[in-house]
Amino acid sequence: MKVLITGGAGFLGQRLARELLTRGVLKDAHGTLQAITELVLLDVVRGDDFGDSRVRTQVGDIAERSVLEHAIDTNTAAIFHLAAIVSGQAEADFDLGMRINLDASRLLLEICRQRGHRPRVLFTSSVAVYGGDLPEVVQNDTALNPQSSYGAQKAIAELLLNDYARRGFVDGRVLRLPTISVRPGKPNAAASSFASGIIREPLNGETAVCPVAGSTRVWLLSPRKAIDNLIAGLELDAAALGNQRVLNLPGISVSVDEMVAALREVAGDAVAQRIVWQPEERVEKIVGSWPGRWDTTRAEKLGLVGERSFADVIRAYIEDEHIQIR
Amino acid sequence: MKVLITGGAGFLGQRLARELLTRGVLKDAHGTLQAITELVLLDVVRGDDFGDSRVRTQVGDIAERSVLEHAIDTNTAAIFHLAAIVSGQAEADFDLGMRINLDASRLLLEICRQRGHRPRVLFTSSVAVYGGDLPEVVQNDTALNPQSSYGAQKAIAELLLNDYARRGFVDGRVLRLPTISVRPGKPNAAASSFASGIIREPLNGETAVCPVAGSTRVWLLSPRKAIDNLIAGLELDAAALGNQRVLNLPGISVSVDEMVAALREVAGDAVAQRIVWQPEERVEKIVGSWPGRWDTTRAEKLGLVGERSFADVIRAYIEDEHIQIR
Repeated sequence: MKVLITGGAGFLGQRLARELLTRGVLKDAHGTLQAITELVLLDVVRGDDFGDSRVRTQVGDIAERSVLEHAIDTNTAAIFHLAAIVSGQAEADFDLGMRINLDASRLLLEICRQRGHRPRVLFTSSVAVYGGDLPEVVQNDTALNPQSSYGAQKAIAELLLNDYARRGFVDGRVLRLPTISVRPGKPNAAASSFASGIIREPLNGETAVCPVAGSTRVWLLSPRKAIDNLIAGLELDAAALGNQRVLNLPGISVSVDEMVAALREVAGDAVAQRIVWQPEERVEKIVGSWPGRWDTTRAEKLGLVGERSFADVIRAYIEDEHIQIR
Repeated sequence: MKVLITGGAGFLGQRLARELLTRGVLKDAHGTLQAITELVLLDVVRGDDFGDSRVRTQVGDIAERSVLEHAIDTNTAAIFHLAAIVSGQAEADFDLGMRINLDASRLLLEICRQRGHRPRVLFTSSVAVYGGDLPEVVQNDTALNPQSSYGAQKAIAELLLNDYARRGFVDGRVLRLPTISVRPGKPNAAASSFASGIIREPLNGETAVCPVAGSTRVWLLSPRKAIDNLIAGLELDAAALGNQRVLNLPGISVSVDEMVAALREVAGDAVAQRIVWQPEERVEKIVGSWPGRWDTTRAEKLGLVGERSFADVIRAYIEDEHIQIR
């Protein structure tokens, strides 16, 4: 079985690749475990190939037809489409967001359709598809009303995938991800970047700026559980998904104050005091439009699982990244 | 003020043009009535110009950039975007539906953005954006789940318009139209074509085939009220629309049996007996996925109005089309 990850050099892409290589197998459309014989990591920069002969790294612009045609052939049985322009950047550069988040996603579906072998395709979507006047707990049948171009582009990609799946062009599914926290590495242009930064930087002995109020409620998932759910989501039986291929993933609903309290619990006062509060209207407007919690009954029935406590998420981050608390 | 109607040679486009020419004025963004100095009717075939010097008919493919660039300039203050590939045809020819219902709609928004003058743009959408397990009465916050490519394309166009409006590229609004009945003329490739055919053909002394069960519930609006609402919708104050530019238009919820009963009431037994029942699975599947009723509180608060009885709709059709009942 050949597997493609777009955004394969990114944080989630690399972590997913490592997990797939470790497992070595993935369920096919009949529910049978198949050996992963080739794993293509496509991105605008070259990803780590982990010194594994099954990995082929490909550098290219996924909005270019020839790049995707090179990456996808009739042996490509599973595609994890993770490549995206993040929320803050898509708001700042409208055309770039449209090109990658919409046009490239459509092109990917279109090339699968032309190949004609009906691969499993997983798109990731986001809390950002919701917005406006939201119920306290977003339901599966709550209307989308994105208040950012990123959210609009993700909502459009969901509709495209649903229709390509309904017509039998692909065996598609979309997972709406909570905000991923704690991400290692550097801050990025996502409006939600702070949700990792306020944990990561203080643990590294650095000051973190929090651009939203402590009462802001966020809906979070750890990288570990995100990877587990991406693989479980790809392996879901199409029949169980029915006429709606989009799933709201389980997460944990915490206020920013509760995140800081969890940091204090795990790493102590000195660490938690490295957060500086500087509200930024641009970020508060985007993040404030997202749901703080959604109903996850459907995903849980399908076997997808979330977190139990944010303190556990911080502990897992410290373990995964070999952090020495200072 | 210059006004553009795409699909301007179509049934609704021509009727809207006639009404605009009769009124002679349209509210601008400040709520001030302005004289309509030029009315461009763009379509793939040449529409009637009503012998009116204000009318310019333009023939062209709206998915071609040069065609829309010719139609839209910085004096174009109001655009009614009615051109579409109907549901049955978009299901039969996926690429054509994507090209007109999605690509051309996006191109229209994009050209307005480039012109930079922020015109009022009205898109029409449809019951077909809904589907799957629906509540008995669809609410404003009921999630879209289109079960046809037409519905998916319309839902995507809604998201695009909302985002272009939010960013200030256009002053946009979308009206979700009930199924229009009674349409004069010939049957078309819309899955809902029967909703006019079972009234129109019997009134013309001809047999009509009804492809759905009599218990099927449909959500209808007459051409007269549709035109009134298109104009009222274009004239709505942007501030009143807020962060959600999409409105579910008022309509009337009737079963097909009730439609036939209304026809019998207005035109007699002999006419109503000209309907032949031949269920067609393809049509039942599409039409059955649409809502039979939706909540219209929001549209009504904004001054948009629907029908009172389907018998009145039939009477208005007989009057407008000068039908002699046989």
